[in-house]
Amino acid sequence: MTNKILAPGAKIGILGGGQLGRMLSVAAARLGLCAHIYSPQHGSPAFETAPLQTVAPYADLDAIKKFASSVDVVTTEFENIPLESYEHAANFTRVAPKPTALAIAQDRLAEKRFLTSHNIPVAPYTEIEQEKDIVSAIYKLGPDGILKTRRLGYDGKGQIRLGLNIDADEAIKAYNGEPSIFEQIVPFEMEISCVAARDGAGKMVFYDSPQNVHRNQILAESKVPAPIEPDLEKLARAYTAKIAENLDYIGVITVEFFVLGVGSEVPLVVNEIAPRVHNSGHWTIDACAFSQFDNHIRAISGWALGPTTRHSDAMMLNIVGSDMDRWEDAATNEGALLYLYGKGDARPGRKMGHVTYLYDKETSAE
Amino acid sequence: MTNKILAPGAKIGILGGGQLGRMLSVAAARLGLCAHIYSPQHGSPAFETAPLQTVAPYADLDAIKKFASSVDVVTTEFENIPLESYEHAANFTRVAPKPTALAIAQDRLAEKRFLTSHNIPVAPYTEIEQEKDIVSAIYKLGPDGILKTRRLGYDGKGQIRLGLNIDADEAIKAYNGEPSIFEQIVPFEMEISCVAARDGAGKMVFYDSPQNVHRNQILAESKVPAPIEPDLEKLARAYTAKIAENLDYIGVITVEFFVLGVGSEVPLVVNEIAPRVHNSGHWTIDACAFSQFDNHIRAISGWALGPTTRHSDAMMLNIVGSDMDRWEDAATNEGALLYLYGKGDARPGRKMGHVTYLYDKETSAE
Repeated sequence: MTNKILAPGAKIGILGGGQLGRMLSVAAARLGLCAHIYSPQHGSPAFETAPLQTVAPYADLDAIKKFASSVDVVTTEFENIPLESYEHAANFTRVAPKPTALAIAQDRLAEKRFLTSHNIPVAPYTEIEQEKDIVSAIYKLGPDGILKTRRLGYDGKGQIRLGLNIDADEAIKAYNGEPSIFEQIVPFEMEISCVAARDGAGKMVFYDSPQNVHRNQILAESKVPAPIEPDLEKLARAYTAKIAENLDYIGVITVEFFVLGVGSEVPLVVNEIAPRVHNSGHWTIDACAFSQFDNHIRAISGWALGPTTRHSDAMMLNIVGSDMDRWEDAATNEGALLYLYGKGDARPGRKMGHVTYLYDKETSAE
Repeated sequence: MTNKILAPGAKIGILGGGQLGRMLSVAAARLGLCAHIYSPQHGSPAFETAPLQTVAPYADLDAIKKFASSVDVVTTEFENIPLESYEHAANFTRVAPKPTALAIAQDRLAEKRFLTSHNIPVAPYTEIEQEKDIVSAIYKLGPDGILKTRRLGYDGKGQIRLGLNIDADEAIKAYNGEPSIFEQIVPFEMEISCVAARDGAGKMVFYDSPQNVHRNQILAESKVPAPIEPDLEKLARAYTAKIAENLDYIGVITVEFFVLGVGSEVPLVVNEIAPRVHNSGHWTIDACAFSQFDNHIRAISGWALGPTTRHSDAMMLNIVGSDMDRWEDAATNEGALLYLYGKGDARPGRKMGHVTYLYDKETSAE
């Protein structure tokens, strides 16, 4: 892919109309670029900030063709766009990242195989094609593990945790016959992520890795700096760079890691690759001059990547479901950098917004 | 005006569809508030980032009524909205700032009288009602002065510089009979501005004052910190506070000052009051956690004002007219925090965008 520079006024096609699409469209507007949001739902959050809109199912190849033909580049706010649609878009315009990146992120088995083929550690796993494989998996990896569908899992969806209370029989009962993997639980000290951007010439920039805390399998908070050794952060960046290079990646990519205990054989394993801007990078809006959204738009538009320097420590808290009841506390809190996504219905588990708090940088961490 | 807190989803009516409206609508979207832009022109820059739009002349009182009735608060991106229209809007919803602020900013004579009535220094001036007043003005204040129409002047429009080359006869020839003032040129060391926000309870926050440099009577650059003594900055803030208090102001207000030479009778005189966010405050987007746009939206929505702490030094350069030819230099410059306004036609003197550069804070300035 050539690194063609898009001129002001160029159209940035974004598949997905959620909060990530919303923040991407604002980043595009800042540069005088023009976002076109494609979303199956009327009233999608990103429609509020973007001048051009398509409402159509992702699987509608005619709509995809029309959309892709009308924009200068197509990108995505999430990885579960039907691959056929994303590849179809690529027939009519540039797409960034490439379809391969989505293909791998859409399929947990393909992702694991990709990572191991590049000597990047993952939690031990085994493929589940049918019920009896579950029993074999438990023999092979022990009962402490998670049965995960290969496709369409996020925020804990499509996952069954096995262990003391749920044994093979119960797992088989719950198993719906979908192609899955069984992944061993690795005891970890914490989760971190590496949010990076790569341009068309292969240059990469990395944001400082946040520590991520999940509650109910949904990201609850991210804080930077993560309390890890610099060597570990370097290793996370090296793995992320290797992944991005091997996907010939353009744009922002996020890799989630488990930090294993001191003395464990490998210090880091990859949990997941997200071929996109990421919830754990929202603090970059406030603590960096160029956010992950800015750098994604810059990368896919052939503009120079901006510095990822962090001027403050930061803590980002997600506002999930009924947390929205407390919006007035945030509105009257002068230190709260609040972002609300314009979603009407605060359903349980739904990400409604986030709030960032900034702190003076701990100079000892320099 | 009560300090009612607008809830997420509330509608923020913005009169004006230029770059200030655009940046205000993005700030509203960030908080989950919903911007409704009112502009006479199709294709206005702010339409690209706002979900709700009205295209109608400012003087169309029916359209103003419909607009005001449909939103929770009306504000403005510029002071030259016909006063009657702004007052009409106030019949149907809250307006912030109040019409008085616009009335004063619209009329150079009213502005001068307001300031002097509150013992705030301005450059010596005299009213011009007819041709012969020009001669009297020169006798009274000397030939070094500027003849300015009382109304609708900005970026140097409606101004005639008198002096060695243009004497009273020529000024009379150029004078179009409009109510005007003649303002003495005061020799100044530099121009600064004070950008501040005031909430409904009277609390104020102040951004650090930038030094502003004009070229061809258009703001060319703003840099913070301005090379001035802390006492002078304090004085600028005190004057700004006095102005805002006496206007019972809600929102962001900007006051432009001339810094007079050491030993002059008064250290600061007010050049102009802008009852709105201001070009000289654009650096706050990048160098502060809460920008002037964020704090304007927060103030008029009854939300807590955010801190104005500046984490970096900054230099903002306007991209005016044919400067746009060099967009590619900015796109490929990794340090350039570029903002383009989505304007198609780069006419001479037209503000097309701006670029901010950040620098480590000079600790000596602390």
